[in-house]
Amino acid sequence: MPEQPELTIQGWGPAPATATEQDGDGLDGALTKAARRHLTRELGWTPRATPPVPVEEIRLAPSRLPEAAQDALVALLGADNVRTDRESRLRRAGGKSYLDLLRRREGDASDAPDAVVLPGTTEETAALLATCSELGVVVVPFGGGTSVVGGLAGVDPDDRPTIAVDLARMSSVQALDVPSSMVTVGPGMRGPALEQELGRQGLTFGHLPQSWEFATLGGYAATRSAGQASTGVGRFDDLVAGLTLATPSGVLELGHAPASAAGPDLLGLALGSEGTLGVITELKLRVRPKPSVCSYEGWSFRTWPAGLAALQNLARLDLLPDVVRLSDADETRANLLMAGGAGAKALRGSLRARGRGDGCMLVVGWEGVPDVVRARMRAASSLLRDGGAVRLGRRVGESWRSHRYSGPYTRDRLLDGGLMVETLETAATWTALPTVYDSVRRALRESLTRGGHQPLVMTHLSHGYPTGGSLYFTVIADRDDALPIQQWLTAKRAATDALLAAGGTLTHHHAVGADHRPWLEREVGPLGVEVLRAVKERLDPKGICNPGVLLPD
Amino acid sequence: MPEQPELTIQGWGPAPATATEQDGDGLDGALTKAARRHLTRELGWTPRATPPVPVEEIRLAPSRLPEAAQDALVALLGADNVRTDRESRLRRAGGKSYLDLLRRREGDASDAPDAVVLPGTTEETAALLATCSELGVVVVPFGGGTSVVGGLAGVDPDDRPTIAVDLARMSSVQALDVPSSMVTVGPGMRGPALEQELGRQGLTFGHLPQSWEFATLGGYAATRSAGQASTGVGRFDDLVAGLTLATPSGVLELGHAPASAAGPDLLGLALGSEGTLGVITELKLRVRPKPSVCSYEGWSFRTWPAGLAALQNLARLDLLPDVVRLSDADETRANLLMAGGAGAKALRGSLRARGRGDGCMLVVGWEGVPDVVRARMRAASSLLRDGGAVRLGRRVGESWRSHRYSGPYTRDRLLDGGLMVETLETAATWTALPTVYDSVRRALRESLTRGGHQPLVMTHLSHGYPTGGSLYFTVIADRDDALPIQQWLTAKRAATDALLAAGGTLTHHHAVGADHRPWLEREVGPLGVEVLRAVKERLDPKGICNPGVLLPD
Repeated sequence: MPEQPELTIQGWGPAPATATEQDGDGLDGALTKAARRHLTRELGWTPRATPPVPVEEIRLAPSRLPEAAQDALVALLGADNVRTDRESRLRRAGGKSYLDLLRRREGDASDAPDAVVLPGTTEETAALLATCSELGVVVVPFGGGTSVVGGLAGVDPDDRPTIAVDLARMSSVQALDVPSSMVTVGPGMRGPALEQELGRQGLTFGHLPQSWEFATLGGYAATRSAGQASTGVGRFDDLVAGLTLATPSGVLELGHAPASAAGPDLLGLALGSEGTLGVITELKLRVRPKPSVCSYEGWSFRTWPAGLAALQNLARLDLLPDVVRLSDADETRANLLMAGGAGAKALRGSLRARGRGDGCMLVVGWEGVPDVVRARMRAASSLLRDGGAVRLGRRVGESWRSHRYSGPYTRDRLLDGGLMVETLETAATWTALPTVYDSVRRALRESLTRGGHQPLVMTHLSHGYPTGGSLYFTVIADRDDALPIQQWLTAKRAATDALLAAGGTLTHHHAVGADHRPWLEREVGPLGVEVLRAVKERLDPKGICNPGVLLPD
Repeated sequence: MPEQPELTIQGWGPAPATATEQDGDGLDGALTKAARRHLTRELGWTPRATPPVPVEEIRLAPSRLPEAAQDALVALLGADNVRTDRESRLRRAGGKSYLDLLRRREGDASDAPDAVVLPGTTEETAALLATCSELGVVVVPFGGGTSVVGGLAGVDPDDRPTIAVDLARMSSVQALDVPSSMVTVGPGMRGPALEQELGRQGLTFGHLPQSWEFATLGGYAATRSAGQASTGVGRFDDLVAGLTLATPSGVLELGHAPASAAGPDLLGLALGSEGTLGVITELKLRVRPKPSVCSYEGWSFRTWPAGLAALQNLARLDLLPDVVRLSDADETRANLLMAGGAGAKALRGSLRARGRGDGCMLVVGWEGVPDVVRARMRAASSLLRDGGAVRLGRRVGESWRSHRYSGPYTRDRLLDGGLMVETLETAATWTALPTVYDSVRRALRESLTRGGHQPLVMTHLSHGYPTGGSLYFTVIADRDDALPIQQWLTAKRAATDALLAAGGTLTHHHAVGADHRPWLEREVGPLGVEVLRAVKERLDPKGICNPGVLLPD
């Protein structure tokens, strides 16, 4: 089991969320001067140090796990693997949404589990679930703890004691079938460790979401993740050949590679089940040879609609790049302001010179076999040019690539400086995308305008399909220090209503969690919810599996 | 609603199964002399005319539909759309498996529905299902009637009256969203009509199974079909963006294009549900521009393992052609014998001259944008050559293409001449494929050897995936005229046990139906069956939806 660094309690990354010595505005140099000036002016924001409370001051209620239950768990897993110490519980409290961070920074860990247990096998997990079902103990699976939708913090309507089932002990490669391009892994394994093991055989997995450094493979499956290269390699769903789901009623072995018509797809029921049906204890994943060519480059469109139209045209011809990321004008401008150094300055100058000062940047990445990559690039480049794009070259592509995981680190610094920063995402058909884009921006702006200042709403399309694409919104506003949670909840509610009304999906790759659950019925209909409930009742009759998440009460 | 020819009652095609005047052996020239000689010698078969009984002699029990039920259905759908005449009932009796054909040819239509109804909308279908649920009338959805696994002929354990719900009135394009590459269609529409409508816009759907002329789009969805080009365009599953499922408990609208992470995939529960959860009343399908290049060609491998290894290598690099079809030595030999004309003779000579007289033929097809197709072909051809293949040229590819739908027509003629002809299929990982291949062939040969003669078992791999491929077996033997059903059932049982034991899936694209249902539990496990049952109980509490199919009792 490779050593995997744990996320810090109050933010992102393995280091403490906040440097012990902060400068005056708390930002710790996270913004260029130009960006700081821009945000100050646009948002009406006064940079101010708003550091989190020291970790030792975080409030944690005593464990409610009954002694008899603890004894039963120890009997099952051994004393080492049943933990009720403060550190263990704090580290498994909630995920990494803005609301999670606000609570943790403010010193609130009321959503921490009463204990943390670490099963080592499918059999142990199944026995654990049966025992918890009998004892009335709620079970929340814990992978990387990176949920941004409250996936780890549902409220049990019966307020039963809760344990986090940490999958860290099941985090290694179990088998590698090279001819069948398939690897069998434990759910607690993370992307970097998997890539390292596969790399030795000249293979790669290639699922690279922004949370890649910390999220687990089991978590990707439970939430139907998509990665930055998912346009090319496919969504996580597409990469799962099979999985094992331990439930309170027994163990399900799902999926039959390469494909089957033997009844409805039960594997698809486990994917996206977010811990509500049981715990994923093993995964069979599709791997591929390391691409012999990786080429990333930047392009610029004059307008967002022109960019969308060009990508739609590539999509229908199956000519989309493996990585595709079209930023709207607001995101493009912000990215250019945030980027320091001479390179960024030169790029800004060059864009202005070509009349693209307020254009929309597109980053594309191509991977695969040289001849085929070249032909795809040639065909796509010609269509991009026809669509009005100008090529900015590899430097822009490589720059994006080298910063691809930096977002959540920067967010911590902006939070330190008094800003509100959160993201949300959806997907829609090419026909509906423009309306979804407009509606969400309008809803966020109306909700978050304070003292005459609008929030900054930055958007990109980052996953292309023949039928549509995803939209990812990043919102930055001056934080309401009196009611910060309320400030965001109101905006989120307005944005979610708006995107559903315009034809977007509730979530493209963040999952439902506790945060989106009130809208699930609008997404799948009342009878759809009933079907999910029927499945849950069969597998988890006592409702111990992650209640308060996914399914509405 | 375009005119769609109906299948004949006792065989394939719109014409009667058997010419009124047969020559001496019943074959009506379906075999070349060389093929006839080969089969006679190998199978110990004596060609003999065994024509079906005249249609007017087929035995049909009187309709058991109670008058009150018939009145209720007429009130709902109108008298024109509730039919109990002999012709209507006979035409919806069962599907087109060898067992179906044996029964119908022998004059048995005991599995015919008691009535045929034709709803026109989702709302009518939902009302129909609610009414039937109340009245205790079993409902079997009827699309093209092409099931080869008993999908239309399950036995209701309660022996209730049964109606076929024919979807022919819901068989047109409802909407076409060109920018989103999405078409909305009725479930009763067939491939040719859809291609015709899409062709006017320069679009294609591209799902081309052997049953293409008669099968319906709703049927493809209900059975998780795969087409001859599914390696390239994807399985039917992959092409469904959404669907409407009318159930006795209400209507489900499933799927959210282009993709969603809003909980488990409920669309995947409807796909492959084979009418057991309700009736599919609308489909949203992904369409694509007509390819500007289509290139089909033949290759030859010295051995089957060499062919598999080369395809596996293409698969891992995402370099498989859009159509891929590798025949084993037995199928290659039979195809060459069956092919008449000077071209086939020349090919046989050329193969012998190159030492490939007993080799394995590969047909590949490439479709898409010219530059990209060229690059893919170049890269793949080089790997095929490295794998020991020699190129036979376009004539072989085009010849396959022009005969792609002929199999079931030929079968009728062979049945007329006293042969047993049936197919079965599975899929397995590249690692398991060779064992599955050997096991199934051994099981079929052991079961079907008669009087010292083995059956002819011909196999091809026709759907390639990174993780594995499908195997399609065609079996020809001298028919046991005394116990023909028993002869095949015994062989099928042995083959199914063998393929499951070797790691194959119960079915890759024919579905479960009544025929595979005893093995479903081995495929998905007892708890998997329980999950399906829980879903069915929620949507179809009275169990009126296609009982006797998919789920074991």
